[in-house]
Amino acid sequence: MKLMRVTAPEDVFKLINDNFLPLEPEEVLLEKSGGRSLAETICATEDVPSFDRSTVDGYAVFARDTFGSGEGIPAMLECIGEVLMGETAPQIREGQCCLVHTGGMLPEGSDAVIMIEDTEATGSLIQSFRQVAPGENVIHRGEDIKKGTAVLSSNHRLRAPEIGMLASLGITSVNVYRRPKIGFFSSGDELVDYHSASLKPGQIRDSNAPALFYLASQLEADIVYGGILPDIFDIFLEKSKSMLEKVDFLVFSGGSSVGSRDFTAATMNELGKPGLLVEGIAIQPGKPTLIANCNVKPVLGLPGHPVSALNIFAIFGKAIIHRLAGHKDKLFSPTVRAVLSRNISSRSGRTEYVRVILEPDDKGVTAIPVFGRSGMLRTLAEADGLLVIPAESEGLIEGTPVEIILWD
Amino acid sequence: MKLMRVTAPEDVFKLINDNFLPLEPEEVLLEKSGGRSLAETICATEDVPSFDRSTVDGYAVFARDTFGSGEGIPAMLECIGEVLMGETAPQIREGQCCLVHTGGMLPEGSDAVIMIEDTEATGSLIQSFRQVAPGENVIHRGEDIKKGTAVLSSNHRLRAPEIGMLASLGITSVNVYRRPKIGFFSSGDELVDYHSASLKPGQIRDSNAPALFYLASQLEADIVYGGILPDIFDIFLEKSKSMLEKVDFLVFSGGSSVGSRDFTAATMNELGKPGLLVEGIAIQPGKPTLIANCNVKPVLGLPGHPVSALNIFAIFGKAIIHRLAGHKDKLFSPTVRAVLSRNISSRSGRTEYVRVILEPDDKGVTAIPVFGRSGMLRTLAEADGLLVIPAESEGLIEGTPVEIILWD
Repeated sequence: MKLMRVTAPEDVFKLINDNFLPLEPEEVLLEKSGGRSLAETICATEDVPSFDRSTVDGYAVFARDTFGSGEGIPAMLECIGEVLMGETAPQIREGQCCLVHTGGMLPEGSDAVIMIEDTEATGSLIQSFRQVAPGENVIHRGEDIKKGTAVLSSNHRLRAPEIGMLASLGITSVNVYRRPKIGFFSSGDELVDYHSASLKPGQIRDSNAPALFYLASQLEADIVYGGILPDIFDIFLEKSKSMLEKVDFLVFSGGSSVGSRDFTAATMNELGKPGLLVEGIAIQPGKPTLIANCNVKPVLGLPGHPVSALNIFAIFGKAIIHRLAGHKDKLFSPTVRAVLSRNISSRSGRTEYVRVILEPDDKGVTAIPVFGRSGMLRTLAEADGLLVIPAESEGLIEGTPVEIILWD
Repeated sequence: MKLMRVTAPEDVFKLINDNFLPLEPEEVLLEKSGGRSLAETICATEDVPSFDRSTVDGYAVFARDTFGSGEGIPAMLECIGEVLMGETAPQIREGQCCLVHTGGMLPEGSDAVIMIEDTEATGSLIQSFRQVAPGENVIHRGEDIKKGTAVLSSNHRLRAPEIGMLASLGITSVNVYRRPKIGFFSSGDELVDYHSASLKPGQIRDSNAPALFYLASQLEADIVYGGILPDIFDIFLEKSKSMLEKVDFLVFSGGSSVGSRDFTAATMNELGKPGLLVEGIAIQPGKPTLIANCNVKPVLGLPGHPVSALNIFAIFGKAIIHRLAGHKDKLFSPTVRAVLSRNISSRSGRTEYVRVILEPDDKGVTAIPVFGRSGMLRTLAEADGLLVIPAESEGLIEGTPVEIILWD
């Protein structure tokens, strides 16, 4: 029997990065751009704000008119009116001031704002009990963004703050990398559509399909579902070929037996060059994973067990989607800190993903490992997240502080 | 001038929980249920798997036929054929075995599977070089899920593993809490639609709207946009009233001046009982936040500065959406561990959210605070995440290990 050649997870990430490229860019409306990565550098075409603005409710003044004033010796100013929001401020002269609201435009010549709580008004006479420095309580024209500066560069992923910033610049559409389209096949003669009300002996429902579709939508990819492929090589290959033409990334789920794995591997080598890149990953669960490069399109053969399949898609499927979508390498992965409830042994030489339940208590959070075969989805549905045991470790002892990746 | 009565963040979360309720349940297709919370307890109506399955490629046997066999003394078995995937397995008798693939059904009577690599075949004669115990390499009927057991309970949020598990049970629709519909108004006479190509002096684009819409979509809520409200109380109130009838949650953005805040507060008290719950939060940025309960519908008045508005919506808007969507309290929030690059002072008595840039280096990750007024969206667009400084702290010194909430 042929031994499986396994690749270390960090090398798999490198292969994904080296073999595949971001999809072609497209222009989308700003309001549709959330989660996408820029395929262009964006320069500000105007100043933000486009005028000097007050950051408080108060009186716009010439700062020097307030110099020397204080609690007992107020400066006396003449209020000439109010800055109406959204309108040009009236001009003021020395010794005058103008009521201005937060966000309002500063009158020409004024260079500071006294907060309303530091003043007292008697008719149009304003007493100011505090001196202000030039620029105090003012956000200057271009202080947030200067016209001409590069505000965002290629491969920057657009989150809510970026969308707000671009909107403030009057940018209503952006050039981003296309959203990946994933072709998805289930395979295995034992599988039936998960909508099937009853099962014949030996049949199981194709539960991976809806679970993986939701994962793909969370990763902001679109799915084209090709159905369940029969274990007949010619049909398998032909359907895969025609699907691969229509999509950016092809995924096979099912086929956990050695025979059917060989079968998927053979298909991958027929679909394009250079073919198979990864014949197995030094990871548990999920070792029998296949990854191919078929004419610069990624093809992923998921392991058959549902827990392994979801695990692998969440880790390596995600890395492939991120590469196609033009996202920068994700450098930071947030975790929950917890204390391990019991000893876990681990075979060294492979990275192990242990499902854990998190329990909060007085001292913090306890991570309780969930055991159970990787065929049992229930063990993953019960778990809050995953504990990663590095390949070089032989296990962890009870009480060890650990970091848990939440499963969302 | 009236002082703002501020509420501590933990009390705001409690108020949200005490004042509002999950929306009414609805039946949705399983494939549309991702991210939603169950409004029912789900019991398994069948066993999963529905038959004894092999977990390896090998030969199904009577375990006792292999007892005593080993490397030098193979057990001799007659192979009567192959279990076809998805079909009833043929029966075997003592001394016989049957080829079975991973996931295949065990023949009646057989109770274990010998892995193919522990055997040698000569025609239909199989030599087994290892003894197996009853149950070895078998997942028994109902071992993943037993018919009749409660597999998921109310308020459990459906993630990919849950969707897979329910699909394996043949469940094609579920009863979940309705997705919240948010009515959204911008307000402030200085605001113009962010699509506006040019600005008059004193005008700014309504950049909060598209940023908040994306945040709401990330939080799995729908937005009904009511446009920019003029600073005229009657129109403000009338439009708010008619919007509130159509939605589950009303949000006002803009109105950073004291005057316009009073105006929003007055509207909230007119919209329903008991009215205003929160007149300010002991948090920085975002203090001038308003939250009201208007006949059991939440109404949120965001602070005017864009950074504050996004911050508050991401924290408290999210808590309100989670309450309406029936999600359990989020107990765990994942963070990235980093080391602070410089001293930060903080006023005690309020929780401070400091924007930080994360920089990986040899020793780990450094968190670099980004300073800048809360009116400057660019400072948030540059930041990778937020560092929370608790209310009782007066600041943090350089080199302190910190936990950063990533801004996604």
